[in-house]
Amino acid sequence: MSILLALSCLALAGPAIAAFPDCTTGPLANNTVCDTSASPVARATALIGLFTLEEKINNTGNTSPGVPRLGLPAYQWWQEALHGVAESPGVIFAETGEYSYATSFPQPILMGAAFDDELINQVATIVSTEARAFNNANRSGLDFWTPNINPFKDPRWGRGQETPGEDPFHLQSYVYNLITGLQGGLDPEYKRIVATCKHYAGYDLENWEGNVRYGFDALISIQDLSEFYTRSFETCARDANVGAFMCSYNAVNGVPSCANSYLLQDILRGHWNWTSDDQWITSDCDAIQNIYEPHYYAPTRELTVADALNAGADLDCGTYYPENLGAAYDEGLFAESTLDRALIRQYASLVKLGYFDPAENQPYRQIGWANVSTPEAEELAYRAAVEGITLIKNDGTLPLSPSIKSLALIGPWANATTQMQGNYYGQPPYLISPLMAAEALNYTVYYSPGPGVDDPTTSSFPAAFAAAQAADAIIYIGGIDTTVEAEAMDRYTLDWPGVQPDFIDQLSQFGKPLVVLQMGGGQVDDSCLLPNTNVNALIWGGYPGQSGGTALMDIIVGNAAPAGRLPTTQYPLDYVYQVAMTDMSLRPSATNPGRTYMWYTGTPIVEFGFGLHYTNFSAELSQPSAPSYDIASLVGACEGVAHLDLCAFESYTVNVTNIGSKVTSDYVALLFVAGEHGPAPIPNKVLAAYDRLHTIAPLSSQQATLNLTLGSLSRVDEYGNRVLYPGEYTLILDVLPQATVSFTLTGEEAYLDYWPQPPA
Amino acid sequence: MSILLALSCLALAGPAIAAFPDCTTGPLANNTVCDTSASPVARATALIGLFTLEEKINNTGNTSPGVPRLGLPAYQWWQEALHGVAESPGVIFAETGEYSYATSFPQPILMGAAFDDELINQVATIVSTEARAFNNANRSGLDFWTPNINPFKDPRWGRGQETPGEDPFHLQSYVYNLITGLQGGLDPEYKRIVATCKHYAGYDLENWEGNVRYGFDALISIQDLSEFYTRSFETCARDANVGAFMCSYNAVNGVPSCANSYLLQDILRGHWNWTSDDQWITSDCDAIQNIYEPHYYAPTRELTVADALNAGADLDCGTYYPENLGAAYDEGLFAESTLDRALIRQYASLVKLGYFDPAENQPYRQIGWANVSTPEAEELAYRAAVEGITLIKNDGTLPLSPSIKSLALIGPWANATTQMQGNYYGQPPYLISPLMAAEALNYTVYYSPGPGVDDPTTSSFPAAFAAAQAADAIIYIGGIDTTVEAEAMDRYTLDWPGVQPDFIDQLSQFGKPLVVLQMGGGQVDDSCLLPNTNVNALIWGGYPGQSGGTALMDIIVGNAAPAGRLPTTQYPLDYVYQVAMTDMSLRPSATNPGRTYMWYTGTPIVEFGFGLHYTNFSAELSQPSAPSYDIASLVGACEGVAHLDLCAFESYTVNVTNIGSKVTSDYVALLFVAGEHGPAPIPNKVLAAYDRLHTIAPLSSQQATLNLTLGSLSRVDEYGNRVLYPGEYTLILDVLPQATVSFTLTGEEAYLDYWPQPPA
Repeated sequence: MSILLALSCLALAGPAIAAFPDCTTGPLANNTVCDTSASPVARATALIGLFTLEEKINNTGNTSPGVPRLGLPAYQWWQEALHGVAESPGVIFAETGEYSYATSFPQPILMGAAFDDELINQVATIVSTEARAFNNANRSGLDFWTPNINPFKDPRWGRGQETPGEDPFHLQSYVYNLITGLQGGLDPEYKRIVATCKHYAGYDLENWEGNVRYGFDALISIQDLSEFYTRSFETCARDANVGAFMCSYNAVNGVPSCANSYLLQDILRGHWNWTSDDQWITSDCDAIQNIYEPHYYAPTRELTVADALNAGADLDCGTYYPENLGAAYDEGLFAESTLDRALIRQYASLVKLGYFDPAENQPYRQIGWANVSTPEAEELAYRAAVEGITLIKNDGTLPLSPSIKSLALIGPWANATTQMQGNYYGQPPYLISPLMAAEALNYTVYYSPGPGVDDPTTSSFPAAFAAAQAADAIIYIGGIDTTVEAEAMDRYTLDWPGVQPDFIDQLSQFGKPLVVLQMGGGQVDDSCLLPNTNVNALIWGGYPGQSGGTALMDIIVGNAAPAGRLPTTQYPLDYVYQVAMTDMSLRPSATNPGRTYMWYTGTPIVEFGFGLHYTNFSAELSQPSAPSYDIASLVGACEGVAHLDLCAFESYTVNVTNIGSKVTSDYVALLFVAGEHGPAPIPNKVLAAYDRLHTIAPLSSQQATLNLTLGSLSRVDEYGNRVLYPGEYTLILDVLPQATVSFTLTGEEAYLDYWPQPPA
Repeated sequence: MSILLALSCLALAGPAIAAFPDCTTGPLANNTVCDTSASPVARATALIGLFTLEEKINNTGNTSPGVPRLGLPAYQWWQEALHGVAESPGVIFAETGEYSYATSFPQPILMGAAFDDELINQVATIVSTEARAFNNANRSGLDFWTPNINPFKDPRWGRGQETPGEDPFHLQSYVYNLITGLQGGLDPEYKRIVATCKHYAGYDLENWEGNVRYGFDALISIQDLSEFYTRSFETCARDANVGAFMCSYNAVNGVPSCANSYLLQDILRGHWNWTSDDQWITSDCDAIQNIYEPHYYAPTRELTVADALNAGADLDCGTYYPENLGAAYDEGLFAESTLDRALIRQYASLVKLGYFDPAENQPYRQIGWANVSTPEAEELAYRAAVEGITLIKNDGTLPLSPSIKSLALIGPWANATTQMQGNYYGQPPYLISPLMAAEALNYTVYYSPGPGVDDPTTSSFPAAFAAAQAADAIIYIGGIDTTVEAEAMDRYTLDWPGVQPDFIDQLSQFGKPLVVLQMGGGQVDDSCLLPNTNVNALIWGGYPGQSGGTALMDIIVGNAAPAGRLPTTQYPLDYVYQVAMTDMSLRPSATNPGRTYMWYTGTPIVEFGFGLHYTNFSAELSQPSAPSYDIASLVGACEGVAHLDLCAFESYTVNVTNIGSKVTSDYVALLFVAGEHGPAPIPNKVLAAYDRLHTIAPLSSQQATLNLTLGSLSRVDEYGNRVLYPGEYTLILDVLPQATVSFTLTGEEAYLDYWPQPPA
């Protein structure tokens, strides 16, 4: 006889499927939580005041059972929406029909390559609209654990694909536009959804040489912490007013992030003033357990949960809080008021989402299936892919000549479908593979998959060679995918995996036009392909989402023009032997060639920000208003500006002319700051502003405006303080520089931000 | 329009499905190949003489197209049968009914733990019988790429599970009995099947810290090569007359194994005289391509295939030979006679298998479905599991008291089915999980899987704790499986993966009998479980095959008595930080604490050869015939013995008494040699003989006979020579020594074997 025990709802990481609270006739109807005229914190406080201690503790995990006796329904806090509403414990797609799909945009790494903030805001608005539709159909909660906004520092990182790239300023600008899109502005009456900035902080290692994220202790200098690892999180908290944070698996300087009061209290809630009563912190899933094992930070399970709760981790994605907070309370390890505060934050957040309010007054409660996967959403998913796709090499073979009538479509991505979604994806309305797109363009297509991404065998070669032999031109679509870069899986090599290098080399000997598409989020070393004159063109395509095949083929044939820019550095193979993945330092040293385009001392295979077009552009940069500026005067003019780093410096105009005669194309204006100012070592250059101009017709011009702030010119000292230093400044327009202008700053250095120092 | 090109049969790694050659009416009927009175080599030579050069080259890959114009059918050389006829390109299981299954024995690592050579011979006989049945039904070829007989040197190795363990003598004895069982004796008129000893040589790394088997260069001293890495292969070639070898992916000392004439010619064919005209070498799959990339050993593809063919790799599992040998021949890089020799070897091998002979005279051609999965085979699969399962700890809780009526069956192996087969498995007749077996024993079973093997989450804890709470006793079945140790995947930690340590610790706090079953091929560090008095018993269960659940539960309840012995050392956690997996040295050094029980200088968690019983045994060892032996006399008495290391020294009798009064049990007699003789460093001890006694009744005795040879006493010098040294010798009976006897050898050292030296 076998008995499968019924699981308590506490234990199940299952879907929400819960009605809204009954504020009309239920036990809560006369409680302040149902009084729409009261403040969110007053309403949440009144609600929590009704809970017994046991009920409070029961509701500290992500699968919150609610309080049945009060008519407070269960709530699942764990929803995902990295690039569209995604499969997760709280999201339930229908098997068919309504709510069986949602728009699936490209992975963030490809959307980052678009360098188009407005695009990101539009995407986020659609994601939150579709999320509301799912919520209204009782198929989702209202808070989503997105974005992943850790900088993509190491090319081996398996989850770098989830981020917009390696540059902190880029991430700040991207995430600001993303969060205001997801939440519906900076301080709306009702939030569209609650977004969650993760993984705070210093998280960019999955599993490398036995170092596993759950127990990894990231040793980070205060300078790097302030200057690099937390910049995007500062924007989330201080500027974009994000509703939630997630503390990460790793420890930072010996203290697990979810028990790290320096991170959660001193920096986040203290320095960044992220103190609204509806802002809460969840742990990454089972990161509370990880404090006990494998961090071995606290000697008992009771101390573990008390450490995390007292440090400010309000919610446990997991079971350690509900299982162990009771015993910890009995041992006097935390105050009940601390538990109350955690719960009040979460329920105040639900108040701000209209959870306790009548549906009829809330516009977002009117959203339904008709608002999901609309033609506009579908077009945006396609456009986001087109905007990100980046042309790395082209000898004129692209766009393909109309004389080419047949294509050999070869490679492990040639018929990609879910592969194009990367990870953290939902059910899409469709997935148009490159093969489907090529057929739709009426080519005669000889399709042969060839070896798989990490396939070491040659058994597929003969069939693929026969396809290559039969066609007018060869399109090879390979690179990497989530079989080699993934959650819990970092890479060990930057080489094209498996037998792809041998295979592509043999394809290049057919004497036919050969276009290589390098897919995936992390870069691979293209140094064998770039000098091979038989490889006629090279495109990086990331994870392009539901319309990925169409976007790629439209660019190949010239129905669309590429203007994406690489959001990460493409390092040479030997980079992985020069620096350990566990080395968190950005600046070069004897055991580190430097990280990111800002600090790397070697020669990249392809530079951060690089991207070719089907036409040529000239770009002129306006001159500074003066050859020299007095620092005291600059700072003195900032009176009334809350944050000095955001105080305006100057605006520059970039006049961009499409000097080609044939192709209409977008152009991304990238402006870097370089020059001798501040403490050594000096970075190579630093991205300070960008803007994407759209559809510049042949022989016509458009203007971009690039706004610099005092922060754009600042550096960070060894204490993490942001400082404006006297010295030489050069602004460099674009990666292959179109223009440079120089000026000086004079006078005494000025502190724009004083960074909180760690406990002694 | 999409065209999926037809694949040439050359390209398909597909099944054989070919009739036997037509020797009656076809074009071959009058060729010597069909003359049963001619020698195999004469017959094969005549056949190859009919091939054109193109036909020869076409038939150099594993998927051999044959020669249609000659009536020579296609033949697939790639069959697997690691522990039963297994899924592979040449094996086709039916979907249902006849030939839809074959007996699935435990993984070799568990069969190794039985230390029962006769068992291995019986298993091998059944595997080859079932293989013949599949061949007669046109569902399999006649050669099988088994065994994997590399020693399991490093506990991290993902494929160690495929081997019998870490000790070279154990492997030699095991593989001799395996191969004579598979092939049907040492030199039968017809071979049952052809076995293939792999992976020659020095292969025991999959993918560790960026070192990948396809490009790894194993730096091995000549001493270690002779003494450790090639011992089992010497037995295959010199003693067991195996039909085929497989050269490995890795290089040895700079030369890829499949292009390594020192390995393939000097040692294998030269020194071991493995020169029958029907003995051939295949590459591991695409190891020929790997010579080009990622070994980068030869600068062109043509030189690559010529290097391998000239070094003696007869067959390419892959496409590089058929694709590139033509161009290599045009460049004059090999002689046609070399190609002929390779093909003659292979086809002479098929002649020895009766491939070209009338079926009616061949007993193996009469084998059919009635000979597959017979009751005897099923019983043997069960017995093989029982014999290997090893009891590591028991406070008397096992066998379970009859007063225990209900069991909580918890853990990621509790309902294991295919998991029990490890890797390289076929379709079994059934898979009896521990859960099914416990139910069959009429327990009330509370089943809850708990966290998965490498699962980092706690969401399954509450349900599992409820199961534990409900039952009289808790059986936890976890450890590792092929999700963490596998082909292409080595481990980084010896810890119990995921949250299992935390989970088991919490299970141990329920105050109930707790039995922990540690499954998987590699060992994990049990140091937290062994001193925990709340963990009452600990069993290692390997991958126990189709009847694994029954075998485990029968031992738990006392229907069977455990007598397995650990075939590998259980190292402590920090072992992986003390020596790199890439370090091939056996002897201790500043960067190596020593490898295997022979050389490890630390304290193992559990020793090689350890295993408890449900009763107690006393064992007496007979005395040496003399206190001292003259080396010259010993060697002088060996006249007529072909190999001095196999020349008899003495036989020892072990008198084993079951001194318990209740339980009938097997007992494995292990005899080690230790003592100061030969060059420093001196190994801790070396296994020299073993035997398993069966079903020793309470208070009764049995005798084992352990035969030592001169080789048992020899050491290997730095040149790889096997030498009998004067000095002190101690024989130690069992791991927890039951008896020791000592003697001396006097006189001058004597060379038993002169090892061929590598090219300068």
